[in-house]
Amino acid sequence: MTEQQIEIQLTAEKKQKPAFDSLEFGKNFTDHMFIMDYTKGQGWHDPRIVPYQPLTIDPASMVFHYGQTVFEGLKAYLTKEGEVLLFRPQKNMERLNRSNERLCIPQIDEELALSALKRLIQVDRDWVPNVEGTSLYIRPFIIATEPYLGVAPSKRYQFMIILSPVGAYYKEGINPVKIAVESEYVRAAIGGTGDAKTAGNYAGSLKAQELAEADGYSQVLWLDGKEHRYIEEVGSMNIFFKINGEVVTPVLNGSILQGVTRDSIIHLLKHWEIPVSEKKISIDEIYEAHKQGLLEEAFGTGTAAVISPIGELFWKDEKLSINGGKTGELSKKLYDTLTGIQLGTVEDPFGWTVKVKEENPHLVKNS
Amino acid sequence: MTEQQIEIQLTAEKKQKPAFDSLEFGKNFTDHMFIMDYTKGQGWHDPRIVPYQPLTIDPASMVFHYGQTVFEGLKAYLTKEGEVLLFRPQKNMERLNRSNERLCIPQIDEELALSALKRLIQVDRDWVPNVEGTSLYIRPFIIATEPYLGVAPSKRYQFMIILSPVGAYYKEGINPVKIAVESEYVRAAIGGTGDAKTAGNYAGSLKAQELAEADGYSQVLWLDGKEHRYIEEVGSMNIFFKINGEVVTPVLNGSILQGVTRDSIIHLLKHWEIPVSEKKISIDEIYEAHKQGLLEEAFGTGTAAVISPIGELFWKDEKLSINGGKTGELSKKLYDTLTGIQLGTVEDPFGWTVKVKEENPHLVKNS
Ligand SMILES: Cc1ncc(COP(=O)(O)O)c(C=O)c1O
Ligand SMILES: Cc1ncc(COP(=O)(O)O)c(C=O)c1O
Repeated sequence: MTEQQIEIQLTAEKKQKPAFDSLEFGKNFTDHMFIMDYTKGQGWHDPRIVPYQPLTIDPASMVFHYGQTVFEGLKAYLTKEGEVLLFRPQKNMERLNRSNERLCIPQIDEELALSALKRLIQVDRDWVPNVEGTSLYIRPFIIATEPYLGVAPSKRYQFMIILSPVGAYYKEGINPVKIAVESEYVRAAIGGTGDAKTAGNYAGSLKAQELAEADGYSQVLWLDGKEHRYIEEVGSMNIFFKINGEVVTPVLNGSILQGVTRDSIIHLLKHWEIPVSEKKISIDEIYEAHKQGLLEEAFGTGTAAVISPIGELFWKDEKLSINGGKTGELSKKLYDTLTGIQLGTVEDPFGWTVKVKEENPHLVKNS
Repeated sequence: MTEQQIEIQLTAEKKQKPAFDSLEFGKNFTDHMFIMDYTKGQGWHDPRIVPYQPLTIDPASMVFHYGQTVFEGLKAYLTKEGEVLLFRPQKNMERLNRSNERLCIPQIDEELALSALKRLIQVDRDWVPNVEGTSLYIRPFIIATEPYLGVAPSKRYQFMIILSPVGAYYKEGINPVKIAVESEYVRAAIGGTGDAKTAGNYAGSLKAQELAEADGYSQVLWLDGKEHRYIEEVGSMNIFFKINGEVVTPVLNGSILQGVTRDSIIHLLKHWEIPVSEKKISIDEIYEAHKQGLLEEAFGTGTAAVISPIGELFWKDEKLSINGGKTGELSKKLYDTLTGIQLGTVEDPFGWTVKVKEENPHLVKNS
């Protein structure tokens, strides 16, 4: 299948767009969506762009019962020159396929998915918001649609891409958060699904997040499922620490999601010749480093916030203030550089950004 | 809300029923379904029985992305006298609410849910199959329906009950299965969602099951997520061993599902004055017991199969044959007794069965 085989059915009536200067995350969706079906024996078929619309889906569809589903999250940015840029989108399609593998969902054609994504953005290009800090959030996802209550891989799936214009993550400048170290709940375990981007991981995390929020913390820091001692992630972000001039992040062990932002940061730090290593990091080490005054910075990394500095860690009744609760220099530099690359205002030495071409009107078939 | 407030809209056209003597599990659904909505601020509302129909649901619905969903599974049986019996249905509603608690889903009114279930069965009573060994499988479930991509509990849900006539689990008599001890993948971890009946647990289990099946095993035996040493469950069943005259089953530790069949078996064994205990059981212990010739029986327990004898365990390149690969005496007795109670042919000393009354036609409002 190629890009040319994507059928396009344009909406008869465009929606009223929300005000781009007061967008909430993930609440508004654009005029169109991409859909492709999978049927066992036939493979993926009927890639199409259609008006954004509700799904009509049997209540026995396996996704509702056994959660066989994967997703991705990435963003498109409008540059000052009016270009639309994607940030390392191939990485997301690769990860989607790794998630598929873990969840027994058939592999997708990554090239086709990327073409579909670009075509969809072309069609809904006027939804890429033009206000500073905003972007178009992209959500590719796959759900199991066979109406069957047996516990087995589904014989039918739908792959979809929906788009949502989102506001600036930091409305008043990049801002550190308070994080509670989670001592009871676990996000993922070795041998589980932690390194896949699949629904169940998030469902399981809600409880801890709810309790942390009730105590005034914005998120939890997840420890490993085995010894409850090694640091894994923060909320739904990867995590970095700067200790005595060196940057460390938990090594990918099978229960940590392989973040695209995480990978980009490791590349940037190496490029800058700042020492960075991936290793097993215990919460005790962090506590010790803090006690000795060596914990200089801590931050979460992910597509939504890019960099989320951690101003305070709460662990065992103690509040560890990090960098006086202020954004660290390196955190800020990473944030500025990454968002700069994403927006095309900072040089992109790695060739990370991918341009979405202007729509060629001859390609649009209104079927 | 009371039973009287359940609106009933009957189907205009009844489906053709499948042949009750060749039913497959979970593939056929009855003429009607129960639905109730939840809206934050308003609570659960609009309980109704409607024709079985596809859901119309936004692609951004949270269930697709973050897996906030729970379910139950139980059965209705047709007795020789033409009565319809449920087996300990309150237990399922209680467990549904425990799952809700873990998944940050609002509690349901268990009484109302049970009334709704009974009303639905009354309406679709002619779908309770009348062939030996068959039953009506009941699937209550809740899905998060708010169209929102933020990781947070949904503000909207739907609670549904669907019904599926299912065939005899054992077509040629109760039959032992071969089980592979899972050495890499993990179903659940302490602090995770293993003791909730939620979709993600099943999605995560497909991979191990697929690999085991490819090797000729029908299911895997799950070890604990921490030490990978203690026995938890088998497939999606609880597990029991009879060792040297004593019955043991893994103690509920937070990562094991609290099976209704498991609980019933413990009650029955105590009633029979057969020694039974719930404890931490390592796979090494089982191996040792087998080596010493003391491992007399092993069986899985769950609503679908009731008792599933294990004829062989595969662990570390060794095949441990149990009771010569044949169904043990106790397994058989438990199976006969439990299915007898469920069908009303064996005395029910615990008051476990609940009768679904004949429909009072005056109650049906065809709105
Ligand atoms: C659990 C989890 N960890 C980490 C990340 C960060 O990954 P990325 O940098 O690719 O956005 C995400 C999501 O974005 C996530 O869901
Ligand atoms: C994971 C799991 N364990 C055990 C059981 C057995 O529970 P019950 O006896 O209530 O059917 C089930 C399901 O039925 C299950 O899904």
